[in-house]
Amino acid sequence: MATAADSDAMRRAIELAARGLGSTSPNPVVGCVILDASGQPAGAGYHRRAGGPHAEIHALRDAADRARGGTAYVTLEPCNHTGRTGPCAQALIEAGISRVVYAVGDPTPQATGGADSLRAAGVQVEQGLLADEAEAGNIAWLTSVRLGRPYVLWKYAATLDGRIAARDRTSRWITSPESRADVHRLRAEADAVIVGSGTMRADDPHLAVRGIDDAVQPLRVVMDTEGTAVRPGARVLDDAAPTLVAVAEDAETQLPDVVRLPRAGSGLSVTALLDALHQRGIRSVLLEGGPTLAGAFVSAGAVDKVVGYLAPVLLGAGPAALADAGISTISEALRLDLRETVRIGPDLRITAVPATPKER
Amino acid sequence: MATAADSDAMRRAIELAARGLGSTSPNPVVGCVILDASGQPAGAGYHRRAGGPHAEIHALRDAADRARGGTAYVTLEPCNHTGRTGPCAQALIEAGISRVVYAVGDPTPQATGGADSLRAAGVQVEQGLLADEAEAGNIAWLTSVRLGRPYVLWKYAATLDGRIAARDRTSRWITSPESRADVHRLRAEADAVIVGSGTMRADDPHLAVRGIDDAVQPLRVVMDTEGTAVRPGARVLDDAAPTLVAVAEDAETQLPDVVRLPRAGSGLSVTALLDALHQRGIRSVLLEGGPTLAGAFVSAGAVDKVVGYLAPVLLGAGPAALADAGISTISEALRLDLRETVRIGPDLRITAVPATPKER
Repeated sequence: MATAADSDAMRRAIELAARGLGSTSPNPVVGCVILDASGQPAGAGYHRRAGGPHAEIHALRDAADRARGGTAYVTLEPCNHTGRTGPCAQALIEAGISRVVYAVGDPTPQATGGADSLRAAGVQVEQGLLADEAEAGNIAWLTSVRLGRPYVLWKYAATLDGRIAARDRTSRWITSPESRADVHRLRAEADAVIVGSGTMRADDPHLAVRGIDDAVQPLRVVMDTEGTAVRPGARVLDDAAPTLVAVAEDAETQLPDVVRLPRAGSGLSVTALLDALHQRGIRSVLLEGGPTLAGAFVSAGAVDKVVGYLAPVLLGAGPAALADAGISTISEALRLDLRETVRIGPDLRITAVPATPKER
Repeated sequence: MATAADSDAMRRAIELAARGLGSTSPNPVVGCVILDASGQPAGAGYHRRAGGPHAEIHALRDAADRARGGTAYVTLEPCNHTGRTGPCAQALIEAGISRVVYAVGDPTPQATGGADSLRAAGVQVEQGLLADEAEAGNIAWLTSVRLGRPYVLWKYAATLDGRIAARDRTSRWITSPESRADVHRLRAEADAVIVGSGTMRADDPHLAVRGIDDAVQPLRVVMDTEGTAVRPGARVLDDAAPTLVAVAEDAETQLPDVVRLPRAGSGLSVTALLDALHQRGIRSVLLEGGPTLAGAFVSAGAVDKVVGYLAPVLLGAGPAALADAGISTISEALRLDLRETVRIGPDLRITAVPATPKER
């Protein structure tokens, strides 16, 4: 039976885990809090980057001798395998932890079993405390493990009448500086940022994170089917962040370091792109492209979350935020559930996720 | 100096005033609260309908002898003229009210002067308490007096990508039953509801208020330029509410009771329509038409408030909520200020008003 102290400790672990967003891939974000035998805070830590110590190790080091007889609260089941770091289950046992409370089970075949190892060593193990919150905090990684492809967040910025630019294609600026700064936070939390050839040609975007200290730069991905949109001197080709250009298998291009993908419709196969990114350890992507690219992802059923920055502006003409999503009648509409609405400066940020069939 | 008791009484008067929304035209909504000489609640009332007693008269009757030496809190400056009812300033004086606190001055030439009459009779008069709230509660009427045309609220219902229907024009339903019920509240508060010929042909709408007890039905207005969209048997021609069909001066139509207006662009002059409605005592209109009609109003600078019901739905094709608003580049965009965002069932209701130049 979880006490208020248990919940407080797990909530703190979830908050700590979030600090790792954007820098732990291909690993999950994980937070750990240790209370000593008398229930006092003894140590805390989180997984900071792939290859570095896991959250439990950071917390055990922080707690030192006070871990003995204490309780460890972990947002994800402690791992049981020896990867680049030793198994956390073993470390918890050796430190004399007497109880482990974790929120979400580890779905990866090679890491699972940590709970069993702990129990076998006589440690009291409980699962499920604040599981929903912990799952939400790790949703990108969990989704990528379950689906075998990166988690996809589609971000758009539009007017109240759904336009991303005016009739003459001018769009600077529809949303506010506050909203644009918020997008850099989304980029920093993603492993990759994707745009299409339309956005490439129209905006020559840079796509790197600015204004956030110690941000790990995302992989910049351009879906450039014909290999003609990314020109020499394009801003994405600078050294601010790595860049991957995806072109059709038969495209003629002078670009080095392209990935060749099968065509689908008038563009590239979204599924093939996500496969290629998953193989490169990309667990979450931020889709920043224009309406056509977003439509291809919606059409492929590959949008897991939508973040819309709605500016209190009316245009009455100009391109819409989403096009060519393969939806022709109202019964085929992609129905979402609103999860959050927040004022960002003068704008409104809306977060939604595809509705589960039951909720429709 | 206003006390907390003063503010409480005025707030109550503002709440009472709101009960008259939709049934007082061409008069404003007004609320009145009377505290007796010892500061105890003695009476309250609001203006219920044009031709009926003003708020002050209701409150004085309610307070009876306890009005003597008391304070009257009124949301609008008491009138000084004898219209269909006697002047309220005189009634307050005769009842022995010793202090009158009102929120907003009366801008109409024939009604103003109430404060002066009260002062001349030795009544203590104060203006401005909760003026912003009182103004907001009476914004439709105040705007109509100041501009000489009805206050225009544009309501739309759209997807997150700004569509009002799918590619095949199906639209039932994008928004939820809760949102559609909320629209009936907007209709009940408006003096008139306006649609264009496109909506008329596509939906054969009824436009009367349903589901709200004692609602005063709005005037149903169809802008039917050529006089061909409102066909015999159209639902707006039933007797649930009055209906006005506006046609071009040169339109050939068999409809009785039309109003003829000059053409403007491909439709009718918005300014001429609003003039005609104002002359009929219409102080507020709910614009429920489609994108073209809304565009004509935006283009004419005749939208005072926007209420958008945003459904968490994506379509990627289909007509946008607003079209042909005369805006061709981003610097010409109509910029608004968000005033409210509220969840209505699964949808989001956004309220915004045109930004003042200073705020842009």
